[in-house]
Amino acid sequence: MKALVYNGPGRRAWQDRPRPELVDTTDAIVRIDAVTICGTDLHILKGDVPTVDPGRVLGHEAVGTVVETGTAVTGTKPGDRVLISCITSCGRCEYCRASVYGQCLGGGGWILGHRVDGVQAEFARVPFADTSTYPLPGNVTDEAALMLADILPTSYEVGALKGNVRPGDTVVIVGAGPIGLAAITAARLFTPSTIAVVEREPARLAATKAFGADVLVQPDDDPVAVVGELTGGLGADVVIEAVGVPETFELCAKLVRPGGHLANIGVHGKPATLHLEDLWIRDITITTGLVDTSSTPMLLKMLAVGKIDTAPFVTHRFGLDEMDEAYDVFARPQDSDALKVALFRR
Amino acid sequence: MKALVYNGPGRRAWQDRPRPELVDTTDAIVRIDAVTICGTDLHILKGDVPTVDPGRVLGHEAVGTVVETGTAVTGTKPGDRVLISCITSCGRCEYCRASVYGQCLGGGGWILGHRVDGVQAEFARVPFADTSTYPLPGNVTDEAALMLADILPTSYEVGALKGNVRPGDTVVIVGAGPIGLAAITAARLFTPSTIAVVEREPARLAATKAFGADVLVQPDDDPVAVVGELTGGLGADVVIEAVGVPETFELCAKLVRPGGHLANIGVHGKPATLHLEDLWIRDITITTGLVDTSSTPMLLKMLAVGKIDTAPFVTHRFGLDEMDEAYDVFARPQDSDALKVALFRR
Amino acid sequence: MKALVYNGPGRRAWQDRPRPELVDTTDAIVRIDAVTICGTDLHILKGDVPTVDPGRVLGHEAVGTVVETGTAVTGTKPGDRVLISCITSCGRCEYCRASVYGQCLGGGGWILGHRVDGVQAEFARVPFADTSTYPLPGNVTDEAALMLADILPTSYEVGALKGNVRPGDTVVIVGAGPIGLAAITAARLFTPSTIAVVEREPARLAATKAFGADVLVQPDDDPVAVVGELTGGLGADVVIEAVGVPETFELCAKLVRPGGHLANIGVHGKPATLHLEDLWIRDITITTGLVDTSSTPMLLKMLAVGKIDTAPFVTHRFGLDEMDEAYDVFARPQDSDALKVALFRR
Amino acid sequence: MKALVYNGPGRRAWQDRPRPELVDTTDAIVRIDAVTICGTDLHILKGDVPTVDPGRVLGHEAVGTVVETGTAVTGTKPGDRVLISCITSCGRCEYCRASVYGQCLGGGGWILGHRVDGVQAEFARVPFADTSTYPLPGNVTDEAALMLADILPTSYEVGALKGNVRPGDTVVIVGAGPIGLAAITAARLFTPSTIAVVEREPARLAATKAFGADVLVQPDDDPVAVVGELTGGLGADVVIEAVGVPETFELCAKLVRPGGHLANIGVHGKPATLHLEDLWIRDITITTGLVDTSSTPMLLKMLAVGKIDTAPFVTHRFGLDEMDEAYDVFARPQDSDALKVALFRR
Repeated sequence: MKALVYNGPGRRAWQDRPRPELVDTTDAIVRIDAVTICGTDLHILKGDVPTVDPGRVLGHEAVGTVVETGTAVTGTKPGDRVLISCITSCGRCEYCRASVYGQCLGGGGWILGHRVDGVQAEFARVPFADTSTYPLPGNVTDEAALMLADILPTSYEVGALKGNVRPGDTVVIVGAGPIGLAAITAARLFTPSTIAVVEREPARLAATKAFGADVLVQPDDDPVAVVGELTGGLGADVVIEAVGVPETFELCAKLVRPGGHLANIGVHGKPATLHLEDLWIRDITITTGLVDTSSTPMLLKMLAVGKIDTAPFVTHRFGLDEMDEAYDVFARPQDSDALKVALFRR
Repeated sequence: MKALVYNGPGRRAWQDRPRPELVDTTDAIVRIDAVTICGTDLHILKGDVPTVDPGRVLGHEAVGTVVETGTAVTGTKPGDRVLISCITSCGRCEYCRASVYGQCLGGGGWILGHRVDGVQAEFARVPFADTSTYPLPGNVTDEAALMLADILPTSYEVGALKGNVRPGDTVVIVGAGPIGLAAITAARLFTPSTIAVVEREPARLAATKAFGADVLVQPDDDPVAVVGELTGGLGADVVIEAVGVPETFELCAKLVRPGGHLANIGVHGKPATLHLEDLWIRDITITTGLVDTSSTPMLLKMLAVGKIDTAPFVTHRFGLDEMDEAYDVFARPQDSDALKVALFRR
Repeated sequence: MKALVYNGPGRRAWQDRPRPELVDTTDAIVRIDAVTICGTDLHILKGDVPTVDPGRVLGHEAVGTVVETGTAVTGTKPGDRVLISCITSCGRCEYCRASVYGQCLGGGGWILGHRVDGVQAEFARVPFADTSTYPLPGNVTDEAALMLADILPTSYEVGALKGNVRPGDTVVIVGAGPIGLAAITAARLFTPSTIAVVEREPARLAATKAFGADVLVQPDDDPVAVVGELTGGLGADVVIEAVGVPETFELCAKLVRPGGHLANIGVHGKPATLHLEDLWIRDITITTGLVDTSSTPMLLKMLAVGKIDTAPFVTHRFGLDEMDEAYDVFARPQDSDALKVALFRR
Repeated sequence: MKALVYNGPGRRAWQDRPRPELVDTTDAIVRIDAVTICGTDLHILKGDVPTVDPGRVLGHEAVGTVVETGTAVTGTKPGDRVLISCITSCGRCEYCRASVYGQCLGGGGWILGHRVDGVQAEFARVPFADTSTYPLPGNVTDEAALMLADILPTSYEVGALKGNVRPGDTVVIVGAGPIGLAAITAARLFTPSTIAVVEREPARLAATKAFGADVLVQPDDDPVAVVGELTGGLGADVVIEAVGVPETFELCAKLVRPGGHLANIGVHGKPATLHLEDLWIRDITITTGLVDTSSTPMLLKMLAVGKIDTAPFVTHRFGLDEMDEAYDVFARPQDSDALKVALFRR
């Protein structure tokens, strides 16, 4: 079969690989019907994620059809159409038993396209299939479901829930990439009074309107002043970091009101400065987190009844064998205006 | 009357001052029966708190007897024995109405001995007396009540509650000054399985045993390794910072398990480094806070029924007119082994 | 002035009364600009609320203009346009300090039109004005604000919050009177996947569509079966009782899933049967409650930014001197199709 | 092997039964080392639990040694000493994934000694062994661990957690059988200010002192008045029902303060009357529940470090082959003063 292989920093290839086979009794083999690319895949390709070995098949967001299952798998069977979650859950460790699958100690967590071969391929082996795949309701399209493999549960759990978004809140989201846009969608489930988005790229910033942003702010427009004006000088109830660099995190810490929440979603490569000399007295809550995907069944239900709209996320569609072109488009959003790209088996 | 006056950096005096008078209709004038000194008072004297003007009477932790009340005061009357809280609450602003008195927008918050004259004096004016004083049950001594003016509600609210201490938790407290010791008492209300304390001074560290610490750690003993051993390598459920310097905060961030809480109580004068490159994926919650004293009535009830023991906190007792000596003793704990000092009207 | 007076069971009159005067220093006198009638007022008129003495001016939901304030009032002043909340808060008792104003022990709670004269009058005395009135943003109309005097905070706090409505939930609301309709609006702030409403009156049931109900059920249509079908046989995540008779409460207990919430908003005059022989094992949470109106500032903000739509609530409008006619219309919803009626000073 | 078999109402026998064998790949066969009897077993024997078929081996609380495991079991192996929980968890259904194992939809829940053969036998088959057994720390005795098979997690989860016991609370526990006594232990983990116990049997009532009860009340002593006196007339913060008859439940509803919690643990066979005409306005939260045993690992840790004392629970000890005698003693607590009985393999 063909798969997208990381061959060391800067080197990727859509190349032949042996079709995966069952290894553990809890595995499933899934034929990939639709897959997408994550910003994290670009980080891996740059060599920023040293835990990924060369030779690794990338990808952790897919929809597929089960073709084979291990003897211990009871929750899914060949022919089932499933969402493959970015998070694998052993279902038995103390974290999994507490619904914190992202921190799985039993061999799961974020492993697909990271520590084991991923889903940017014609077929994939999914460990712990019973607790790591989700059956798809008939009326949910592959494309819509793809948005639930990572970005929507991440922005809901790590952004809206950890940030404690409440009705009436003023929410500021810093960064309008796919995860920032998903954070708008997620935050709106709690009906804030105002969602303000801070983003440098004018096209991305403008795009947030369609997702439901109320106030658009460019970093040069003094976000602290804008948010102060929105909130009687207090600051935002919730600030969501969706970029992953020190400057944006530090901006978030200036935007949050006394008693407010700063929820970090961004993937960071460097430390930030925490101004405790100002913050110690201000009742701030700062959270970080990897998604657990514990919200995936709820989000699937919302897709099925039409209460979440994923249409604006996917800007480009490809065949699976156009993987190279899809990566090129996704890697240059400033030129392509790409948000999420989707690749389909044809 | 006599009062302890801050006369600029390094200059304090127990000197004559006019006896305070009612200014607002919500004021009470209180005769001070017992008072204590806070580490913050030492910071002010060093000149570290620029919002304190020279000429200010210091002190924000006292017990006294009401001698006069403004026309709008209905909850207390001359002759009442009251606890004067370190936090003043206007009772009407949006923060006070949400029980977040520490962030009061209506003229309260931490103002005593800070923005208005404090309680290290023979008499004090207490603004918003109805919502900023607490009647004392008959069987609660002045000395015991003093521990509820600041350190116990602070360690309970900002430490145990914000840190989300739960039965069975492994709790690490970094720093064993009065606030760290109070954090042991506060955490024990939720019956952790293990309380470990990290403290450099051997005498202070040894003293934590009497408060209920289970494991004593010196900073040179590799606290990360010790806590790892206690927790199967995961880290602590809750880590409480009770020092206020970057090094201890950064140590705390290394001690907390994935999914755990880091509750900062320490008063910081400098920024710390936040290692988001490690923490972004670890589901950490970091909180800061000023006490609200919303727990004061509960803590008073616990004192009255004997479920909190404040006896080990007060190491030195003085007359009110020995204020200078009390400051000297409190400022040199390494020599005096002082924890809290208490001064009484005689 | 004129006022609507309860003159004993079955006897009401829009009659002359002395204009109210300041009694306590915390009072305000407010000229009533808009007022509405509550189902509770009808109960009082039937004689069902024995704590209301004959001679009482009724009414607890109004908007007005402050004309005079007591000497202790600092938060509002003559000329201010304010919402008069159905709940009066002393601001000082242990319940008020914990934001539970409905259970005020200091002379507040539900007193207007109940234990003291109410607001269905040309002028009203509002006790504890600082903590019992809310300034109105300029762009919020009197009519819209009226919906925040009782029904919207009640349905939000006692229905949606106590019922713990979460994104994706299946919510069933039993009863589609004004409070049931408001419960739809309140629940939608948390974006349930499905809102089903059970109501006997066909016109009322049909009206719920405009408020956002997804599924309409008549009591004869076997609500247990309908909800079972919606939820894979489990039952609803949240059931909200908005009628106040034993039959509807008992129906609610049959509709809730294991682990779900039953939030009672209805005002009950009789006991219900609680089938503990079925429920003891099912992890049910049942809540009751009087509104606190702690959510009023948030709801006002939502009105101001247009995120809550109150337009469909008011079906009939009158002048204040048409009080009798307004009562007649409101008391016969089956004929008049009245939901809420609004009366305005002209 | 020998097992305690329910042979229809009123008929039990310690009789020969075939030794259980593996059925599913997720099963374990466990040799029973210690076992106890539950009040529920007595109910079954009376014929009160129609879901139990004659021929069923009873018992759902045991400690044992694994002797054989199915091919899909990876978390335990022959030779392991394990706690067998009263709740079986499939680990995969939506309830199990949310840590609500008691409501398992995948074949678990309370099944041992109920829908499948139980543990009052020399050997038992434990379904879903990976997620339904708990490895025992070396220093935890069989007898201590037995108290964690049902009564301590039940009283902690269904009593203390659902009842929301908080430091400083006044907690009333109605009923001082084993589950009521365990509720004292569980509530104390949150350090209430006062624990009052209501119990008719003088010997049982007296026994509560050793568990930490502060106030002992007989039903004839007007518990409403006693609790009113303890709480300034307000009522208790938390009331825990630990009997299971309408009278005690209805008493609980009279004892709870406005805003308080009534947590039902009792197993009920009949409906109770819920006085909504009084309660609708009082902000009461009523909870019911079956234990999930999600707290079992935490409680085991507390046993291992000595922070929970189970010694006073076990009043009588037997050999496994003295099952009949043990039942006789346990069934007549008024004569035997039995709390929990323990039977050990010899």
